[in-house]
Amino acid sequence: MLRIGVDVGGTFIKAGVVDESYTILHKVSVPTGGDAAYDAVVQHIAHAAELAAQAGGIAVREVASVGIGIPGLLNPRTGVVVSAPNLRGWQDVPFLDTIQKLLPVPVRVGNDANCAVVGETLVGAAKGCENVVMLTLGTGVGGGIVAGGRLFVGGEGLGAELGHTILKWGGETCGCGMQGCTEAYCSVTALVKQTRRAMEADPASAMHEYARQAGLVDGRTAFECSKLGDKAAIEVVENYCGYLANAIGSLVTVFRPDVVLIGGGLSNQREYLMDKLNALLPKYVFAASIIGVPPILRATLGNDAGTIGAAFLDRM
Amino acid sequence: MLRIGVDVGGTFIKAGVVDESYTILHKVSVPTGGDAAYDAVVQHIAHAAELAAQAGGIAVREVASVGIGIPGLLNPRTGVVVSAPNLRGWQDVPFLDTIQKLLPVPVRVGNDANCAVVGETLVGAAKGCENVVMLTLGTGVGGGIVAGGRLFVGGEGLGAELGHTILKWGGETCGCGMQGCTEAYCSVTALVKQTRRAMEADPASAMHEYARQAGLVDGRTAFECSKLGDKAAIEVVENYCGYLANAIGSLVTVFRPDVVLIGGGLSNQREYLMDKLNALLPKYVFAASIIGVPPILRATLGNDAGTIGAAFLDRM
Repeated sequence: MLRIGVDVGGTFIKAGVVDESYTILHKVSVPTGGDAAYDAVVQHIAHAAELAAQAGGIAVREVASVGIGIPGLLNPRTGVVVSAPNLRGWQDVPFLDTIQKLLPVPVRVGNDANCAVVGETLVGAAKGCENVVMLTLGTGVGGGIVAGGRLFVGGEGLGAELGHTILKWGGETCGCGMQGCTEAYCSVTALVKQTRRAMEADPASAMHEYARQAGLVDGRTAFECSKLGDKAAIEVVENYCGYLANAIGSLVTVFRPDVVLIGGGLSNQREYLMDKLNALLPKYVFAASIIGVPPILRATLGNDAGTIGAAFLDRM
Repeated sequence: MLRIGVDVGGTFIKAGVVDESYTILHKVSVPTGGDAAYDAVVQHIAHAAELAAQAGGIAVREVASVGIGIPGLLNPRTGVVVSAPNLRGWQDVPFLDTIQKLLPVPVRVGNDANCAVVGETLVGAAKGCENVVMLTLGTGVGGGIVAGGRLFVGGEGLGAELGHTILKWGGETCGCGMQGCTEAYCSVTALVKQTRRAMEADPASAMHEYARQAGLVDGRTAFECSKLGDKAAIEVVENYCGYLANAIGSLVTVFRPDVVLIGGGLSNQREYLMDKLNALLPKYVFAASIIGVPPILRATLGNDAGTIGAAFLDRM
């Protein structure tokens, strides 16, 4: 039977009709309108599900269920969203109750990064794995964990916030207000900050010309210039990969996954990034020389991971 | 029916006969002889179980099972001990197979810190909790996790090595060879190092006289002198508690336990330590102002936690 998966982002809501073989048959994207009132945004989400159904020539009541990934902290069992920084006023809102009234089939909800790891484990880069750690590198760092074949979300479903574990005691201030979080070193936002600092320190770096032509400094600046041999860019990339490999190393020491997945925009650096991380990882994993380390792979489903995972949250 | 629990340490093997209400009825302690050959140490362990039974006036074959906690990295399912630094030559040894041949009832094995969290959750400070994180502060930092009412050990049972997650990127070298591990800041060994440094920097500190009278610098030196108002000692304790609270904060962010337990010798500082940690914790937990933080409590079973937990490993 068909299902609908919805991936709610700060800017767009993506919804898709997904079949039992985890293929997205039809998909739509509508603006989130994240600045609107809570009720209005919930209606946008329900509407996205309806549009996806329409795109497939069916009605929502004809699918088995709707699964929704939310960019925030939520209890997947009660469906209460405790906090969602990109959606105005979403603090302690009974999201599942609210949206269930608007949709005629059972609704499930989950954190967006958790939906992504479910999708990748069901049909993506970690297909068939029992233990998976996934980091999604973007504006922030999202985390998802599959342990023993089940989605691991911690007590009350509020854990697995892998972007906000300590990487450097007393280090950089994170967007969350704490110091030294993984996100403050490993997000694309952090990489851009590291890139800007290196550019300021080296006016002769090729990164200046690259950024001028691109019209901005972004997550590509240092990576692309490092490929061209620019010394300052190479240093930025080396440091960044060291931070990220160390953060991954600690997760491996705790979870011992079969595979570590990297998702988000930066994963487009493909082997250039993965080769560096895989080379560094043994340095940062406890007893690596004795028990080895898992491979770090690029997530393969891209944006679809969240939609597929949301639709099949109950499979893990 | 009775069971036998065995807690293997680097120096002593403790064994006890435990009843269904988790009470240790009889206990014995024998030297580990950790420098002896593998087969000899395994025989010491089997002998400790036999002595415990004898102390209770029974034979090993009259108990339901024997559970054994090992200070090392092991796969609890296969019973292979991958590494146990305090037991000479214990690398990739088929411990469960070897000892099962010496004992006439079913044997189970687990990591010692994991046995401790099982004991504390069944009958100690975390009794009745579904989600528990426990740190045992001693020569090293041992970790145990109960998640969703089950012992969490990671893939192949080799995870949950909470002493070797990153606390400070590029920081102090740890005994394991990595840099900046939690153990390198939060073990009693690390505290002693921090204490010595502060004493060297401040010849007028009351810690010098305290250590002279005690005959050594140990985990008590800074704590006891801080209670007397010694400035250098207060600074050592404040820094140490900051490290530990930050390490705990990251574990809370990932596992969202109902309670965090502190075991090991340093937990004898009781409320003096727990009050400081509980006061600091919200600073280091993601979204603490919204979702709160769990209490940090002193483990209450002491050395018995490992024996009881080993005997009842199958309960979690």
